[in-house]
Amino acid sequence: MSRQSSRTTDSKKMNSELFTLTYGALVTQLCKDYENDEEVNKQLDKMGYNIGVRLIEDFLARSGIGRCQDFRETADVIAKNAFKMYLGTTPSVTNWSPAGDEFSLILENNPLVDFVELPDNHSTLIYSNLLCGVLRGALEMVQMAVDVRFVQDTLRGDNVTEIRMKFIKRIEENLPAGDE
Amino acid sequence: MSRQSSRTTDSKKMNSELFTLTYGALVTQLCKDYENDEEVNKQLDKMGYNIGVRLIEDFLARSGIGRCQDFRETADVIAKNAFKMYLGTTPSVTNWSPAGDEFSLILENNPLVDFVELPDNHSTLIYSNLLCGVLRGALEMVQMAVDVRFVQDTLRGDNVTEIRMKFIKRIEENLPAGDE
Repeated sequence: MSRQSSRTTDSKKMNSELFTLTYGALVTQLCKDYENDEEVNKQLDKMGYNIGVRLIEDFLARSGIGRCQDFRETADVIAKNAFKMYLGTTPSVTNWSPAGDEFSLILENNPLVDFVELPDNHSTLIYSNLLCGVLRGALEMVQMAVDVRFVQDTLRGDNVTEIRMKFIKRIEENLPAGDE
Repeated sequence: MSRQSSRTTDSKKMNSELFTLTYGALVTQLCKDYENDEEVNKQLDKMGYNIGVRLIEDFLARSGIGRCQDFRETADVIAKNAFKMYLGTTPSVTNWSPAGDEFSLILENNPLVDFVELPDNHSTLIYSNLLCGVLRGALEMVQMAVDVRFVQDTLRGDNVTEIRMKFIKRIEENLPAGDE
């Protein structure tokens, strides 16, 4: 589906349950389509990436936030602004690496998994993996290559859900030849 | 994915854009999976139905609304409470049939179609058809058989998006033998 050229930042606030159940339908469909969990995880990440590269523009317009000074500021903006805006929840930022290039987002509440229990035959499914893709895609559009992955998941029996984010490099802005 | 037994009505309010883009990913996936628009429309309706039969419990708990006296009250609850709650928008209720068994929901803003343009080769796709299924499924759980379909869609060039709802019958409550 292509994107409309005209946009508004007129906001529609909604409860998360319809989104949660629709996301469940998407994951269920992918589990039918692909042979194993690993493939489903990949697809979710890929879909998320495509969503992230589009969502970032909406986020920047809506939040009015400019370029972050460092990865710590990026972490705060993701947790306090982006998650709050699009998922209605604010994860905590923690477990910084000494070099300041890695941190974790701890989600006490992951709205995507309300109503969900993993069936036994999908024990390696990373159910919410779309989120990793969204973060990766969105950050790439602001010139940051970041590795994003789930390291803990309440759905798989962990006490919390933890997304680990590792800064890889700043991406050079390559303006296409002839761009205006 | 099965449902958890424990539930909260703790609400997460979120902006609609991530939902909108995720829904787009679902429709795109179905367009890959099924041969023609008609099949995709059917699948969206079916998925929506499965979502509706689950969502109704959340809706009743969250809204505190009891049994409607008549179809007019049902129409108002759908527009002013359900759409507002889960899509952040309030359609208008209009075009009542003389017998009071049919009405239209007119959506000035359909959050599902933000960012979307139908490609030329999907001219018969009923992009938001999930919503019809959700309404049908949810109403069935409160003993109402209702026919729900899109009759106008801005995505297909119409001025507004119109969902037509036709009351079919009240469903008898059949308690399963041995139910507590």
